[in-house]
Amino acid sequence: MKSDETLFALLSRASTASLTAVLLQHGISRAFMYGVAPLPHSRPRVVGRAFTMRSVAVREDILATDRQRPPEVNLQRRAAEECPPGHVLVIDCRGNASGASGGLILFERMRMRGCAGVVSDGGVRDAHDIVATKFPVYAKAVCPPNSLVAHRFVDLQVPITCGEVAVYPGDIIVGDPDGVVVVPAALGEVVAEEAAMIEEKEEFILRKIRSGASIFGTYPLSGDALREFETTRKRS
Amino acid sequence: MKSDETLFALLSRASTASLTAVLLQHGISRAFMYGVAPLPHSRPRVVGRAFTMRSVAVREDILATDRQRPPEVNLQRRAAEECPPGHVLVIDCRGNASGASGGLILFERMRMRGCAGVVSDGGVRDAHDIVATKFPVYAKAVCPPNSLVAHRFVDLQVPITCGEVAVYPGDIIVGDPDGVVVVPAALGEVVAEEAAMIEEKEEFILRKIRSGASIFGTYPLSGDALREFETTRKRS
Amino acid sequence: MKSDETLFALLSRASTASLTAVLLQHGISRAFMYGVAPLPHSRPRVVGRAFTMRSVAVREDILATDRQRPPEVNLQRRAAEECPPGHVLVIDCRGNASGASGGLILFERMRMRGCAGVVSDGGVRDAHDIVATKFPVYAKAVCPPNSLVAHRFVDLQVPITCGEVAVYPGDIIVGDPDGVVVVPAALGEVVAEEAAMIEEKEEFILRKIRSGASIFGTYPLSGDALREFETTRKRS
Amino acid sequence: MKSDETLFALLSRASTASLTAVLLQHGISRAFMYGVAPLPHSRPRVVGRAFTMRSVAVREDILATDRQRPPEVNLQRRAAEECPPGHVLVIDCRGNASGASGGLILFERMRMRGCAGVVSDGGVRDAHDIVATKFPVYAKAVCPPNSLVAHRFVDLQVPITCGEVAVYPGDIIVGDPDGVVVVPAALGEVVAEEAAMIEEKEEFILRKIRSGASIFGTYPLSGDALREFETTRKRS
Amino acid sequence: MKSDETLFALLSRASTASLTAVLLQHGISRAFMYGVAPLPHSRPRVVGRAFTMRSVAVREDILATDRQRPPEVNLQRRAAEECPPGHVLVIDCRGNASGASGGLILFERMRMRGCAGVVSDGGVRDAHDIVATKFPVYAKAVCPPNSLVAHRFVDLQVPITCGEVAVYPGDIIVGDPDGVVVVPAALGEVVAEEAAMIEEKEEFILRKIRSGASIFGTYPLSGDALREFETTRKRS
Amino acid sequence: MKSDETLFALLSRASTASLTAVLLQHGISRAFMYGVAPLPHSRPRVVGRAFTMRSVAVREDILATDRQRPPEVNLQRRAAEECPPGHVLVIDCRGNASGASGGLILFERMRMRGCAGVVSDGGVRDAHDIVATKFPVYAKAVCPPNSLVAHRFVDLQVPITCGEVAVYPGDIIVGDPDGVVVVPAALGEVVAEEAAMIEEKEEFILRKIRSGASIFGTYPLSGDALREFETTRKRS
Repeated sequence: MKSDETLFALLSRASTASLTAVLLQHGISRAFMYGVAPLPHSRPRVVGRAFTMRSVAVREDILATDRQRPPEVNLQRRAAEECPPGHVLVIDCRGNASGASGGLILFERMRMRGCAGVVSDGGVRDAHDIVATKFPVYAKAVCPPNSLVAHRFVDLQVPITCGEVAVYPGDIIVGDPDGVVVVPAALGEVVAEEAAMIEEKEEFILRKIRSGASIFGTYPLSGDALREFETTRKRS
Repeated sequence: MKSDETLFALLSRASTASLTAVLLQHGISRAFMYGVAPLPHSRPRVVGRAFTMRSVAVREDILATDRQRPPEVNLQRRAAEECPPGHVLVIDCRGNASGASGGLILFERMRMRGCAGVVSDGGVRDAHDIVATKFPVYAKAVCPPNSLVAHRFVDLQVPITCGEVAVYPGDIIVGDPDGVVVVPAALGEVVAEEAAMIEEKEEFILRKIRSGASIFGTYPLSGDALREFETTRKRS
Repeated sequence: MKSDETLFALLSRASTASLTAVLLQHGISRAFMYGVAPLPHSRPRVVGRAFTMRSVAVREDILATDRQRPPEVNLQRRAAEECPPGHVLVIDCRGNASGASGGLILFERMRMRGCAGVVSDGGVRDAHDIVATKFPVYAKAVCPPNSLVAHRFVDLQVPITCGEVAVYPGDIIVGDPDGVVVVPAALGEVVAEEAAMIEEKEEFILRKIRSGASIFGTYPLSGDALREFETTRKRS
Repeated sequence: MKSDETLFALLSRASTASLTAVLLQHGISRAFMYGVAPLPHSRPRVVGRAFTMRSVAVREDILATDRQRPPEVNLQRRAAEECPPGHVLVIDCRGNASGASGGLILFERMRMRGCAGVVSDGGVRDAHDIVATKFPVYAKAVCPPNSLVAHRFVDLQVPITCGEVAVYPGDIIVGDPDGVVVVPAALGEVVAEEAAMIEEKEEFILRKIRSGASIFGTYPLSGDALREFETTRKRS
Repeated sequence: MKSDETLFALLSRASTASLTAVLLQHGISRAFMYGVAPLPHSRPRVVGRAFTMRSVAVREDILATDRQRPPEVNLQRRAAEECPPGHVLVIDCRGNASGASGGLILFERMRMRGCAGVVSDGGVRDAHDIVATKFPVYAKAVCPPNSLVAHRFVDLQVPITCGEVAVYPGDIIVGDPDGVVVVPAALGEVVAEEAAMIEEKEEFILRKIRSGASIFGTYPLSGDALREFETTRKRS
Repeated sequence: MKSDETLFALLSRASTASLTAVLLQHGISRAFMYGVAPLPHSRPRVVGRAFTMRSVAVREDILATDRQRPPEVNLQRRAAEECPPGHVLVIDCRGNASGASGGLILFERMRMRGCAGVVSDGGVRDAHDIVATKFPVYAKAVCPPNSLVAHRFVDLQVPITCGEVAVYPGDIIVGDPDGVVVVPAALGEVVAEEAAMIEEKEEFILRKIRSGASIFGTYPLSGDALREFETTRKRS
C-alpha cells in the first residue's frame, strides 16, 4: 500500500474531471461537490484526508447557553487546533451560506499548523484577505456575517454531507481550480493510479488533436493512435 | 412541573401562530419549520417529544456495504421500532426531497406502536395511502422513490436540523394544519401557559371584532376592552 | 362608463385565463401574479379595486423604535380599518414568505367592514382558520411567524409589486381558484367586455367539442361553426 | 407478450412507489418526474403510452411568423387531434411554468377522443375547470397565461425531457395521486409483473403490521412470515 | 446583402448591451441568455453562426444501449467534427449543469478546426485548462463530472433553447465579457448597422459626459449636443 | 460628533466582517446584503451615505405612458444628477436581475459628479467597461438588457430593501471586496469606533497566530496575550 505522501503526489496531478470519471467507472456518481467553489479571484489546489465538522441550525436558547461555556469547547476553535497537518477541514453547513463557517484568523492558524485547506458548503468571511494568504479554501459563498447567525457546530469527525456529497473522516479530498472531489478512503490507491493513466492518455490525445488529428480514432484512442500510445508508454 | 400529558393537552389547543409569537417573546425566532407541510389533502395535528434521526447523502460504495448488513441495523427500521409511544419522529433529510424518508409500512408500524407522528424535511412515499390512515405526517414533498436514492441514515437521537430549525431530542414538536413548530424542552411549560393565554385573549378579541369592534382598542386589547377581558377572565 | 358594480359583475364571470388572454391582446403580458395562490384547501373568488400596502425588510433598530409608537400608526392595522368596502388589500412583501403579512383577526375585521379580500406575496398566518371564514385570501405561503420577523410596512396606497406584477392603487384585482390577475384601471371596461365575449365563445366551443367536434374549425371558431355561433348570439 | 390492455390493468394496480422500486432494481434511478404534480384538489390516476410534444422558448420574430400560418399546423392543436386513444400526451416545457401548455378546450377534445391524460412540466390553465371533468392532468403549476407567452411547440413524437426524466414515444406513463413514473417501453412487462408482486407482498406485510407484527422479520419478509406469505400465495 | 465576414466585423464591435437594446426596438425581448456566463477568470468575445445540439435527460437503459454503439455516432463527437469553421456550437442542456456538455479535448479539436466558440446552458469540465487556450466558452457552471451523468445528446441542427432563449440553426451568436446574445438570422444586417450607430453615439455621449456634460440633453442626445453629433458624423 | 469625512476614514479601514460583528453586538443581524457582489473581475471598496431609488415591476401600459414624458422626469437620470457627491446610489430592484438598473453612461456621470458608488440588487449592463473605470459597483448580476424590460423606477429617497436588507436614506453604506454592509445612520459613530478596535485587535491576534500562537488564549484574547495587547495599545 502506498504512503499518503506517494498517493497524494499522484492525486495532485489528477484533475477533478479525471477523478470523477474514474470514480464513475467504480460505480460512484456522487463525488463532486456541487455549489462549492474556490473563493473569488483564487485558483486553489489541495489534496488531503478529510477532517470533518458538523453543524445544526443555530437556536437562540442554545446560543445563550453556549456563550457561557469556555472558548476551549468551541468546535470551530478545536477544529483549527485539532485538524492534523496535511488534512483538509471539511465543514457541513447544510448548504446554508447565510453565516460564515470560518475566517482569516482560524484559517491562518490552520495554515501555520500545516493543514492542507478548508472546504465548506457554507459561507466564508474575510475571503479577500484569505485569498492573499494562498491557503486553499473552497466555499459556497463569501459571507462576512459570522457563524453564529446561522450555525452551531456540534460534532467533529463524524460522517457529514458537504456540497451534497457524503464525506467520511479519512476520505481523500482533492481540489483543483474547477472544484472539489471526494475520493473514498478505500479507493484512494486504485483511483490515483487510474486517474494518472487517464491524465497520461489525455495528454497524448491532446498532442494528437493539436497536431490536427480528428476526434474519431483519437478520443477515445483506437487503431493506430492507440498502438502509438502504447508503444510510447512502453518506451518511457 | 406539569406531566407531559397535561402539557401536551395545553399545547394541542395552541396554534402554531400563537406558539411562534410566544417563542419570539422568549427571544427564539427560529422555531417554525419552513418548507415542511402536511401531506396533500390532509390537515394533521400533532404534539409530542422529538425522537430524531439524522442522514447524510447516499454514496454508492457505502450503500454496497450497507446492503450486506442485517435489516436490524437499518436506522429507519430501528426508528420505527424505537421511537417511543407519544413521540414524534423528526427526520433530518438536509432539505433534500429527491428520495423518501419513509412510507406507509414504517409509519403504520409507528401508528400501531402509539407514536404521535412523523416530521421530515425530505420526501415521503405512499403519501396518498398514508393520509387515509390519519397518521399525522409532515414532509417537504411527496416522493415515491425510496430513501436509498438520496439518503443514508447515520444517527438516532442526536441534535439535527429539520426545515432549517434545530431539533434536540426531547424538544416538543407541535403541528397544526399550518405547519410545525419546535418548542425547546426547557421552555415547554411556560410556552404552553403563555400560548393558552394568547388563545384565550384572541378568542375574546375575535368575538369583539365579529360584533363590529375596530382593530384599534381591540387588537391589542386596551382601555375598556382590556378591562372587560380581565373581568370576564376573573369570573371564569 | 360602467359603475364598479356592473363592471365587477361582468369580471366575476371571467376566468383568470380569459383575462390574461384579453390583456395580452392589449399588449400587457405582466398581469398574472406568479407564486401567489389560494390558501390550502380553498377555492376563492374575488373582484375589487386594489388598496395597496408596501413593506421593506425589518431591521432591529427600526423595530425597537416602532415598538414605542401607538398601535394607531401601525400600517397593518390602519390597512384593516382603511381599506374601503369592496376593495382588495394587496400587500407587497417582496416575495418573502418568511414572515406573515396578516392573520385571522385583521382579516376578520376586514370581512366585517365589507372588504373583498386580501392578496399578498408574503406569508399568511392562521391560514386554516381563515379558510373556514370563506374570506378570499391569496398568498405565497402559509407562515405562522408574524410579520415583524421579516417585514416593516411603510406605505399605503403607493405603486407596489406583488407576485412580480405591478399594482397601482385603483387597479382591478380579479381572483379565481387558479390565481390572481391585475387589470389596469383604465382598461377595466374594455377588458371586462372582451373577456365576457371570450367566455361566451368558449362555452359555445366547449359544447361543440363535447358533441364531438374537431379542434380544427372549432378552436378557433371558423367557417360553419363561426357562423353558427354568430347566429346563436344574434338570437339571444 | 401481453397486450397493452392486460399490461395496463396490471400497472394501474401498482403505486408509483412500487414502480420506482422495481425500476431501481433494473438499474433505472431516473423514472419519477420531480415537480410534476396532480392539479390542485385532484387525485388522478392514469396509465398509457407516451405521445410526446417538444417546445422551445418563444421568440417574438418567430411568433409573428407563426401567427400567419393556418391553425392546422399548430402542434398543440395537432397533438389534441393526433394523440391516439389510450395514450398520454407528455409535454416538454423545459420545466418553465410561466406559460400554459394547454387548457380546458384542448383537454376536453382529448377526453372526447379517448386519450388517457396529460403530463406537462409547464403550466396548465383552466385548472379548476379541468379538475371538474375528472380528466387526469399532471403539471408543474397552474398558469392562466397561455402558451405563447413562454413556449413554441416544435416537434411531436421525439425524445423529450419532462420533470427531469427522459421520455421516448411509446414509453409507458403511470400516474397516481403521488405523481408520475415513466416505465421504459422495453421493460413494461417485467416491471408490471414485479410491481404486482411487490403490491401483493406489501399488502400481506401491512396486514401483519396492522395485527401488531414488528418491522423486523416482516419488512422485509423473512423467516416464518416469509414462509406464511409463500404458503398463502400458493393457495391463491 | 453583407457577407458574414463584413457582418461579423460590425457585430464584434457591438456590446451585448447595445445589441439587446436594438433587438428590443425590433420587438425582441428574449435574446440575452440568462445564467450563461464566461468561464471563471476569462473575458471571452465571440461572433458566429449557431450550430445547435440538443439533449434529453440521461436514462440508464438508453445509456446501456448507447455504450454499445461506435464512437462515430456520438453526437458530441460529431458536433466537434461537423460544426463548421467560424460557427459557434450552442448546446441545449435544459439549464442542467450537474453534468458537463464538453471539455478540453473536444473544444481543442473545435479550436483546431476554426470553430468560433461554444455556448452551453449546462456544465463544462476542464474549465481552468480551457481558459488557458483562449477558446471562447460560455456555460452555466464549471462541472467536472462528464456528460453522461446527466445528458444524452439526441439532435444536431434543430431549434433549441439555451439560457432560456430560443436558438435556431444559423442565428448569429454574439458574446462579450458580459454574456451572450442571440441575433435572429433574418435581422443580422439591420441589427448590426443599428448597433454600430448606437456604439458611435454612445462613444460621443461618453466623451461629453467625461468632459462634464449633464445627463439631461446628452443621454439621450438632444438639442445642441445632438446637432454636434450629427455634424461630427457628416464630417467623418 | 464626528464629521462624515472622519467617520468614513475610520469605516473605510473596517472590513465588512468586522462591521457585521459590531452590528450584531448592537442587536442588528440584518445588515449584510445577500446576493449583491462586486462586478466580475473587480475588488471595489466604497463608503458613503445612501441615496435610495425604488422600483416596481414594469407594466406595458404604464411604459407606454412613460415614453411620452420628457427625459427629465426619468428617475434613473435624475438619480445620476441628484445623488450628492460622496453618496452611494442604492437601488431596490426587488432582487430581480432580469433587467439592468444602470450602465456605463449613467455611472460615468455619477463618477464625474463625485458620487461614491452604486449598489443594486438588480442587474448592471456594460459591466466589463464599468470595471475598467474603477467606479465601485455592486450588483446581483451582469445583465445587458436595459431596465425597461423589468423595472420602473418610482421613488427617490424613500426606505427601500436591497439584498434583503432595509436601507433608509442617509444610512452609511460600506463595501469591500467581500460585499456590502448597511450601517444605520444613528449608529455610524459607535460602529466605526468599535470596528476600528476590532481591526486593531485582530491585527494583533494575526501577528500572534503568525508567530505560532494557539487559537486558545489568542482568539478571543485572554490572559497574557490580552495583557500584552493592552500594554501595546497604551504605548501607541
